Amino acid sequence: MNAETNLIQIVGEDLCKQLVNRKLAFDAIQDVFSAMARGGARNFPVIREGLGHAGAVYGFKSGFDAEGLVLGVKSGGYWPGNADRGLTNHQSTVILFDPDTGQPSALVGGNYLTAIRTAASSAVSIAHLARTDAKVLGMVGAGHQSAYQLRAAAEQRDFEKVVAWNPHPEMLPKLAAVAQDIGLDFESVSQRELGAQADVIITITSAFEPLLMRDWIKPGTHLACMGTDTKGKMEVDPELVASAQVFTDEVAQSVTIGEAQHAVTSGALDPDAITPIGAVINGDHPGRTEIDQITLFDGTGVGLQDLAVASVAARLASEAGLAGTVRL
Amino acid sequence: MNAETNLIQIVGEDLCKQLVNRKLAFDAIQDVFSAMARGGARNFPVIREGLGHAGAVYGFKSGFDAEGLVLGVKSGGYWPGNADRGLTNHQSTVILFDPDTGQPSALVGGNYLTAIRTAASSAVSIAHLARTDAKVLGMVGAGHQSAYQLRAAAEQRDFEKVVAWNPHPEMLPKLAAVAQDIGLDFESVSQRELGAQADVIITITSAFEPLLMRDWIKPGTHLACMGTDTKGKMEVDPELVASAQVFTDEVAQSVTIGEAQHAVTSGALDPDAITPIGAVINGDHPGRTEIDQITLFDGTGVGLQDLAVASVAARLASEAGLAGTVRL
Repeated sequence: MNAETNLIQIVGEDLCKQLVNRKLAFDAIQDVFSAMARGGARNFPVIREGLGHAGAVYGFKSGFDAEGLVLGVKSGGYWPGNADRGLTNHQSTVILFDPDTGQPSALVGGNYLTAIRTAASSAVSIAHLARTDAKVLGMVGAGHQSAYQLRAAAEQRDFEKVVAWNPHPEMLPKLAAVAQDIGLDFESVSQRELGAQADVIITITSAFEPLLMRDWIKPGTHLACMGTDTKGKMEVDPELVASAQVFTDEVAQSVTIGEAQHAVTSGALDPDAITPIGAVINGDHPGRTEIDQITLFDGTGVGLQDLAVASVAARLASEAGLAGTVRL
Repeated sequence: MNAETNLIQIVGEDLCKQLVNRKLAFDAIQDVFSAMARGGARNFPVIREGLGHAGAVYGFKSGFDAEGLVLGVKSGGYWPGNADRGLTNHQSTVILFDPDTGQPSALVGGNYLTAIRTAASSAVSIAHLARTDAKVLGMVGAGHQSAYQLRAAAEQRDFEKVVAWNPHPEMLPKLAAVAQDIGLDFESVSQRELGAQADVIITITSAFEPLLMRDWIKPGTHLACMGTDTKGKMEVDPELVASAQVFTDEVAQSVTIGEAQHAVTSGALDPDAITPIGAVINGDHPGRTEIDQITLFDGTGVGLQDLAVASVAARLASEAGLAGTVRL
């Protein structure tokens, strides 16, 4: 062994599932949003490239949390043919580095962590922006990720019921089973009916057109739009976005690849009117200011979220002596 | 084990040194330059960010070789305080992915590989562009990387002698020992004298000002400028660049962060006059067309070079059963 070799922790998917529960993910995501708003943590530009192979989109999200001393990158992307192989279409791997030396410190499976950090993100928005008397949770989307969003959201308010809509209704029973598992009533509804009933709405689809219109939404609703992470994608009516009080994980992504992109492009929404959720967490912005205000969280997904939960996994694995190690 | 877990090869620094010799690196770099010029391999945008911590610059180079089916990223950067810890200041780690599924396939130490791929790059340029009767090799720079450049260059022509200059002359004896080891005479000279004697010149420094002026260089010289990889850096007189026949690994990098940036910015060099070395390798450009022509290779360093040599290391390690494996 020479001085150049160093130990790298290997933290696999199963270990991540075992170690990083919803509460830990919530805290990690809340903390990193807070640090981002203070300027203590920064995301680097996102690389996202079509490969021209296997229909895949591949890229990197990365950043540095100078407060938590977390440095790294999430590599991966979307491979549409994976499902036929029994694999997750979204594939993610996180590598963390020692910010003092640049040496890799941990290789962490990123599939479960991506799911739980995305769920934590909408949960943090609900915790800080939804009305405290919210009773009905609306779910738009019933794919793989929706169960994570539902479980994390359900812990933020005393919900009694879930109303859900999905473009493919045959997927709804799986989400209904999740609702049942956590003791919530479940009703499959039309999009209009969802808007009429829900106090909090999570959208988690890959849509390119509005699934909810401005006029369908009740006053006082909180929306967490979690599906739009690419130029051109859209989950809700841009007029709904423009009329809401808009919050986001990162303003730069919100206006370019997030749900707010369309309202900003059309001029209906001033980018300066979009507030980082971290400012609310830090007490620098009041968040919801009126009981009948519609609040909208544009969850675009940033690299620092991935690094935050991966760092928790690596730390806990190390403390418990559960991670394997390799040398490079 | 579930379907989501997969084996990842661990290929450490020592294994890379054992498996990837100069010949293999030369062939891999020549092949990937060739593929790039054909459009069969593509580098993605480079991320390079100052951390504001430990004086470090951190980032990623990545790409996809659709011909060789090599996909991945080199993470790392420059940590100026590492030398005091007994570590290399430049830290690199490569992760390769299965382009069919997006799952990580290999984690490869990148420090040795970065050194040998950078050396292979200038060697490829010498093989294709230097006069066949070259006898004197000029080395500008005598740091850690210079020994790799010298050894790789020495195999391309029947050199008899090395002339060298370094801003810190006390570093020259180490380079002299390398020359002696491979049977070449060695002379420490002034910059002017180096230009007057050398038939082939490699610059491998971190300079921000010209170390060689146009008038000091002999007709027929081939220069490989390997040190400039950032906006603002400069190793040779922009007039020298403008008057030379310029080749590069990647034109987009050459004109923005490479040695050609200054001559292009001033208007002295037309970007269209810069030729990818791959076009010469492929026989689509004649390369040197006159015996007295000055040829200049602007070696900026691209991600596909890193992936190419890492892929060789991973393949050989797998074939020899030498790599450890982990699951994520």
